[in-house]
Amino acid sequence: MKRRDFFRNSALAAGTALAGPMDLFGKPIVGPRQADRAKNIIFMVSDGMSLGTLTMADELRFRKEGFQSHWMSLYRGGLAKRAVMETASASSLVTDSAAASSSWGGGRRVANGSLNVNADGSFNKPIWQKFKAAGKAVGCVTTVPITHATPAGFCVNSNSRDDQPRIAETYLDLRFDVMMGGGTEFFDGGQRKDKTDLFGKFIERGFDVVRDRDGLLSADPAGIAPLLGVFHGDGLPFALDRDSDPELRRRIPSLAEMTSTALKRLSANSEGFALQVEGGKVDWAAHANDAPALLYDQLAFDDAVAAAIDFADRDGNTLIIITTDHGNANPGLFYGSKADANFDRLQTARHTNHWVLNGITPRSTVAQVIERIEAACGVAIQPEDAGELLKHYRGADEAGLYNPRNLPFRALAGMLERHLSVGWGSMDHSGDFVELAMYGSGSGELMPFVRNFELHDYMLRATGVLTTV
Amino acid sequence: MKRRDFFRNSALAAGTALAGPMDLFGKPIVGPRQADRAKNIIFMVSDGMSLGTLTMADELRFRKEGFQSHWMSLYRGGLAKRAVMETASASSLVTDSAAASSSWGGGRRVANGSLNVNADGSFNKPIWQKFKAAGKAVGCVTTVPITHATPAGFCVNSNSRDDQPRIAETYLDLRFDVMMGGGTEFFDGGQRKDKTDLFGKFIERGFDVVRDRDGLLSADPAGIAPLLGVFHGDGLPFALDRDSDPELRRRIPSLAEMTSTALKRLSANSEGFALQVEGGKVDWAAHANDAPALLYDQLAFDDAVAAAIDFADRDGNTLIIITTDHGNANPGLFYGSKADANFDRLQTARHTNHWVLNGITPRSTVAQVIERIEAACGVAIQPEDAGELLKHYRGADEAGLYNPRNLPFRALAGMLERHLSVGWGSMDHSGDFVELAMYGSGSGELMPFVRNFELHDYMLRATGVLTTV
Repeated sequence: MKRRDFFRNSALAAGTALAGPMDLFGKPIVGPRQADRAKNIIFMVSDGMSLGTLTMADELRFRKEGFQSHWMSLYRGGLAKRAVMETASASSLVTDSAAASSSWGGGRRVANGSLNVNADGSFNKPIWQKFKAAGKAVGCVTTVPITHATPAGFCVNSNSRDDQPRIAETYLDLRFDVMMGGGTEFFDGGQRKDKTDLFGKFIERGFDVVRDRDGLLSADPAGIAPLLGVFHGDGLPFALDRDSDPELRRRIPSLAEMTSTALKRLSANSEGFALQVEGGKVDWAAHANDAPALLYDQLAFDDAVAAAIDFADRDGNTLIIITTDHGNANPGLFYGSKADANFDRLQTARHTNHWVLNGITPRSTVAQVIERIEAACGVAIQPEDAGELLKHYRGADEAGLYNPRNLPFRALAGMLERHLSVGWGSMDHSGDFVELAMYGSGSGELMPFVRNFELHDYMLRATGVLTTV
Repeated sequence: MKRRDFFRNSALAAGTALAGPMDLFGKPIVGPRQADRAKNIIFMVSDGMSLGTLTMADELRFRKEGFQSHWMSLYRGGLAKRAVMETASASSLVTDSAAASSSWGGGRRVANGSLNVNADGSFNKPIWQKFKAAGKAVGCVTTVPITHATPAGFCVNSNSRDDQPRIAETYLDLRFDVMMGGGTEFFDGGQRKDKTDLFGKFIERGFDVVRDRDGLLSADPAGIAPLLGVFHGDGLPFALDRDSDPELRRRIPSLAEMTSTALKRLSANSEGFALQVEGGKVDWAAHANDAPALLYDQLAFDDAVAAAIDFADRDGNTLIIITTDHGNANPGLFYGSKADANFDRLQTARHTNHWVLNGITPRSTVAQVIERIEAACGVAIQPEDAGELLKHYRGADEAGLYNPRNLPFRALAGMLERHLSVGWGSMDHSGDFVELAMYGSGSGELMPFVRNFELHDYMLRATGVLTTV
C-alpha cells in the first residue's frame, strides 16, 4: 500500500470533521519534483518560534479559515522532509539570533551577539558571499531591520550584531541583489549619527531603492540592478496591526509580497539564486508575550511559505528550508474548560498588545484602557487591572513611552491569559529543539536530527556550490 | 551520496566537540530490519511531555553522561521515521490523558475524562482487546497506577477515568498478559472501599501476582499465566528519588526493568504481542513544575526506550512507537548569562521537589528548609523564601500534608527558576503538537503529520490485525 493510500483508505480519517483537506491550496496532491541538486534555495526563518507558536497558528488558521497552515499542509500531504534541530551557540545552550544565523551562515557556532566571528577573532565567510561568488543572485527579506541579526548572519562578519549602522554600509559594498525590510534609521542621513546619506549612496552606486509598497510592486521584476527596500523605521508593523489599518496596508508590503517580488527579481538570474525570508517579528512578539501579534505574524510568515512553495512548484529546481532559529517564551494553549472558547477570541482580534500599550498615555483613563483592549482583542479586563496597567505609565515621560522595555507587556499578558488561555514560560529565548522542514529539490539528504551549523554545508552541497568555494 | 555519508563526510560535523556519537549504544549504525508488517508492537508514551522536556532531558544526558538520549540517537542515526501529532480530544483542543489514550486505543476522539465512550454513550472497542482476540499477548507497564488513564485507554471502556477501583476489577476479567505499575489501593482489600481483596481474586484466577522488584525479577520469563505487578500505592516514586534511596531501589523496579520483563514474558507468545509502556510521572512532574523529577523521569523513560530498541533489534519483527499524549507546562531552559551553569546543577540533583515538599512539616525551621532544598538540588534559597514556603504549611494538619495539591510546588519552582534557568508556562496540559517516532517493522507508512486517533488503525494495519477484527 502506498503511504498516501493509507490515510485515504481510513474510514475514520475520512469521517471526522477535524480532518483537514489532504491537498495543498486545493490542488490534487502531487509529489515534489525531486532532482539530485537544487539550483535555488529559499531559506525561511520564523524567528523565535516555539512549537506552541507553530501549533496555535495552525489551529487558528484551521478554525478561522478552514484550512491548515501551509507549513503543516506540506506534512499532511507527505510532501516535505523533517528534522529536529538543535540550536545551541558557542557560548550557550540558548542561542541568540546572531549566533544562530551565523551557525547557518558561517558553518560554525559563534558566541551569542557576534556575526560569523570566532573566539580568536577570525572570520567565517558568510554563505551568501559564497553563493554570490558562485554566480548566484542572493538576497534577504525580513519584517525587522534588514541590518538585523538573522539577515546579517548570512551576509556579513561583525563583532557585534548591534553595529547596524556599519552593517548597512557593508551592504553597499556587497551589492547583494535583493535586501528588504525595516531599519530606515540605519540608512537615512537625518537619523544616522554620522549623518551619512546611505540611501543616496545606494542610489549613486546603481541600486534600485524603494521605500514603500507601491515602489516595491512597481519595481521591474526582471531588473538586474541590486534592489534595496526599506519600508519603515525599526521593524515593520505587526501583521495584525497592518491588516487593520488601511494606511499601513497601502504603505507597507506584507512578508509574502516582499517574498514574491524578491523571487521574481532573483529568478531572472540564469545561474540560480539564494533567498533568506525572515518572519522576524514573531520573535519580538514572543519577547513581549503578545499573543495576537505572535499568531498573526506567524500566519503572515505562513503566507510567505505559500508564496515560496508556489514558486518552487513552478520552478522545479528549488529547495525550500523552513525553520526557526530558537524557541522563545514557549507559549501554549493551556488546559481549562474554556480553553477552546478563549482561544477562538483570537479569530476576531484586530490589534496587538503592542498597539494597545503604545496607545496608552499617562493621561489615559481606566475606561479608555478597558475600551482600547476590548477594541484590540475583544477582552474586557477589570477596572482594577486597567488601573494596574496605568500605574506603569505614571512618571514616564512621553519620550520614554515608546521604549517597549518600559511598557507593561508582562502584566497585560497575565491579564489576557485568563481570557485567551495562552500562557508563557518566559520573555526570552528557550533552548528547545526546533522544527525544520525541507521541500523540493535537494531535500532528500536531510537527516531527522541536525545541529544548526550543519545546514551551512547542506546548502552548499545541495546546490553543488561546495566544490567551487 | 547516501544520506549517512552526507554527515560522515562533513568536516564540520566531524570537527565539533558537540557532535554526539553517530551510533547507538556504541554499535555501528545499521538500518532497521524492515518488513512489510510487524508481528509485535511496543507503544511508548512519555505522558505530558512538552518539547522542552524532551530537549532538556537529551541535553542533560549528553552533558552528564556523554551521549544523547536513545530517542534522539535514533534520529541522529537516521533510523526512525517521525511525525508531528495533533493531540486534541472530542471536547477540546487540549486533551487529558484519558481522551488521548482513548483516541489511540479506540480510534475515535472522546470527551476529556472518559475512556472509549462516545457522546451518545456507545463504546469503542479498546485496541488491546482487539489484539488479544487476534491471538496476540497484550500488556501495559507504567510508573503510575496500572488503572490510570493511559493504560486504561488501551484496555477498557469507562465513563470516568476516576473509577479506578472498577477498572482494576475489569482487569481481572480481561486477563491481559502483563499489567504492571502502581495503584496498590485499587487492589488491596484493606484499602478498597468495598473491602474486596482483589489481589486474592487475581491469585485465585490463576494470575502470577508480584508486589516488589524481587518478585518481578524472579518471575518465570516464559510463564504463560497472566502477570499482575503492583509495586506501590498511587504512582511509583520518581526515578530520581528511587535512585537516591537504596531501600526504594531494592523494592521498586525501574520502568526499563518492567519493560524488559514484560517483553520477555510477552514474546513467549508465538502469535506476537502488543505492549504499552508509559512514563506516567513525567506528566505528574510537569503538573508540579518539578524540574528534577521531570528530567530524570524522562531519562528513565529513555532507558525503557533503549530496552525496547534492544528487543526490536534482536527480534526483527517489532514496531516501536515513541510519543507523548500531550504537552504539559511547556517548560524550557531560558536565556541568560548563567543559563548553562544553572542547567548543569541538575546533573547532581539527588531528590525531587516532591521529596523536598513532602519532607517539610509545620514544625520545620527555616534552616531545615534551606538545608533540605540544598541537599536535593544544590540550590541555597534565601531565608525569606524558605519562610515563604513554610507559610504554606501553617494550619495544615498532618493528614492534609500529603495531598500534593496543598503543597507549594509553584512557589518552589519560581524560586528554583532563578537558579536552574528552567521556566514554566503553566501547571497544566498544553495543546502543542507533539513529537512521534516509529522504529522498526511496519514504520514505513508513517506520514509526517498525524492526528492522534489515526494511530489506532495504523497499529491494526501494521500488524495485519485490521482485517481480522
